[in-house]
Amino acid sequence: MKIKVLATGGTLDKRYNPLNGELIFSQTSINELIKQSRNTVKIDLEILMLKDSLEMNDEDRKIISQACIKSEEKHIVITHGTDTMVESAQTIAKSIASDKIVVLLGAMVPYQFKQSDALFNFGCAITAVQILSPGVYITMNGQVFDYREVQKNRTIGEFVAI
Amino acid sequence: MKIKVLATGGTLDKRYNPLNGELIFSQTSINELIKQSRNTVKIDLEILMLKDSLEMNDEDRKIISQACIKSEEKHIVITHGTDTMVESAQTIAKSIASDKIVVLLGAMVPYQFKQSDALFNFGCAITAVQILSPGVYITMNGQVFDYREVQKNRTIGEFVAI
Amino acid sequence: MKIKVLATGGTLDKRYNPLNGELIFSQTSINELIKQSRNTVKIDLEILMLKDSLEMNDEDRKIISQACIKSEEKHIVITHGTDTMVESAQTIAKSIASDKIVVLLGAMVPYQFKQSDALFNFGCAITAVQILSPGVYITMNGQVFDYREVQKNRTIGEFVAI
Amino acid sequence: MKIKVLATGGTLDKRYNPLNGELIFSQTSINELIKQSRNTVKIDLEILMLKDSLEMNDEDRKIISQACIKSEEKHIVITHGTDTMVESAQTIAKSIASDKIVVLLGAMVPYQFKQSDALFNFGCAITAVQILSPGVYITMNGQVFDYREVQKNRTIGEFVAI
Repeated sequence: MKIKVLATGGTLDKRYNPLNGELIFSQTSINELIKQSRNTVKIDLEILMLKDSLEMNDEDRKIISQACIKSEEKHIVITHGTDTMVESAQTIAKSIASDKIVVLLGAMVPYQFKQSDALFNFGCAITAVQILSPGVYITMNGQVFDYREVQKNRTIGEFVAI
Repeated sequence: MKIKVLATGGTLDKRYNPLNGELIFSQTSINELIKQSRNTVKIDLEILMLKDSLEMNDEDRKIISQACIKSEEKHIVITHGTDTMVESAQTIAKSIASDKIVVLLGAMVPYQFKQSDALFNFGCAITAVQILSPGVYITMNGQVFDYREVQKNRTIGEFVAI
Repeated sequence: MKIKVLATGGTLDKRYNPLNGELIFSQTSINELIKQSRNTVKIDLEILMLKDSLEMNDEDRKIISQACIKSEEKHIVITHGTDTMVESAQTIAKSIASDKIVVLLGAMVPYQFKQSDALFNFGCAITAVQILSPGVYITMNGQVFDYREVQKNRTIGEFVAI
Repeated sequence: MKIKVLATGGTLDKRYNPLNGELIFSQTSINELIKQSRNTVKIDLEILMLKDSLEMNDEDRKIISQACIKSEEKHIVITHGTDTMVESAQTIAKSIASDKIVVLLGAMVPYQFKQSDALFNFGCAITAVQILSPGVYITMNGQVFDYREVQKNRTIGEFVAI
């Protein structure tokens, strides 16, 4: 078992820029996060981009889909911004081979914050991708959602079943 | 879906006592950990004990087993020290109803440390308990183990398949 | 010895709003910070406002100055945004009684981030206010500056002597 | 201005050993701590030893004293275990040149814990050493103590004036 981890950015990877007080993308925190997890499953990490998912376009989603298609690993975990995670899941689902398991996760609070949910969500995704049957899923708020049955409720900041 | 979470202590719940420089059990960190997770699955938390698993005896394991048997929830997550987690899993497996899913987790580094794996492992367990078929499992190091096929390798501090 | 601590906001007190991904002021972190410090000097904390110092106006600086004047404690520590900390120090210096010691501090990274400098800077200010002779000072980057001899270099994000 | 920082260990530098569940000395956290502080005062760091201060003997205190004597910097900060910090201060005071300022600090909670006071205490010491007149001091609990007028009250875990 080897898991392909594709990083695309999102809140999880936002960092504080002391020079202008803004949250920015500079470098991914995924390596720190993996180290902290003490995970022993083999992971092949690939940084595709570091983007706010509200700023992702069709081209970006194509890059993510292509990376899923090209992945030699059947088990794929994707870190992604929460706002358009469902859209990316839909795009991936259209083209992915029928034997692959893809799990997307994000964070509501960046990993660099003390109170981040990133490590928890990553645990959910790493576990789900090993157990679930082929398909495209989202693990947020401790739940496992089929990508066709979930949306982010932006008013409460939670993923809910539809 | 509602998950019963039984806390028994272990490294996850150790705290620093500034008065004597020792790691002790004073209060559980599970509530803090659940809050940080932003989990929205209903959880019924029950603190059974706060013990180092090396100091657990048959009576303690009986208490844990009984709590599993009495649990109205079929989905049960147990926080537990890593050193005798497998023994407790064996005890639980002997008496548990055939429709229940029990997942044990611990931590190699206490939740109160910056570099703790507790939140990750909790994410693994919360996810596994919702997906797996009935049985008794251990989620450590990002892996899901059947309780009969795992042991803790104390030399390297990791759970490995046997 | 009792120290008056006046909180006015600034980067130190910014928190992450998961609903819109922005850094906001909701509640102060000063109580958490004081608890973590294990400080035993008597502190009388007063929250004057929670503002980005770039948005402070003359009225705000008047409120801060008045609080310094009214303070029964001679030793006053003020948490403040870094961008206009020097301006507030100048305003305070104009009206403050000649026997008072005022030390301003801020943070380049919010307290809620793992890598925050807030706790360090607070230690610097609490110490400086107890030792220095009357006047108005700024403690940032481990240095103690007379308010007339310092400016924030925004290009490098550091306070430097002038 | 350049500050000599001598590290000797103590609670501040204790780390968790996941293999046996004990707090140990493996590597110092002082570099991490200095980075987090965003300090811009020049620091010359020297690791003398990493020891629990209860296990320090006359030879160790001689090493610390010698390092103070040899230090080209007049401003010296020493990280030290809290239990015998006063004894080491006394030893240093016997031999130190009359123009040097020595400030000792420790931590009641290791830097690797989320709730550590280490960063705060370091801020206190870095500030005190720049302002105080020559002598030997201890900065703990937000206070600045002359080494002859302080003791650690182990019952409450605080440094108090005597």
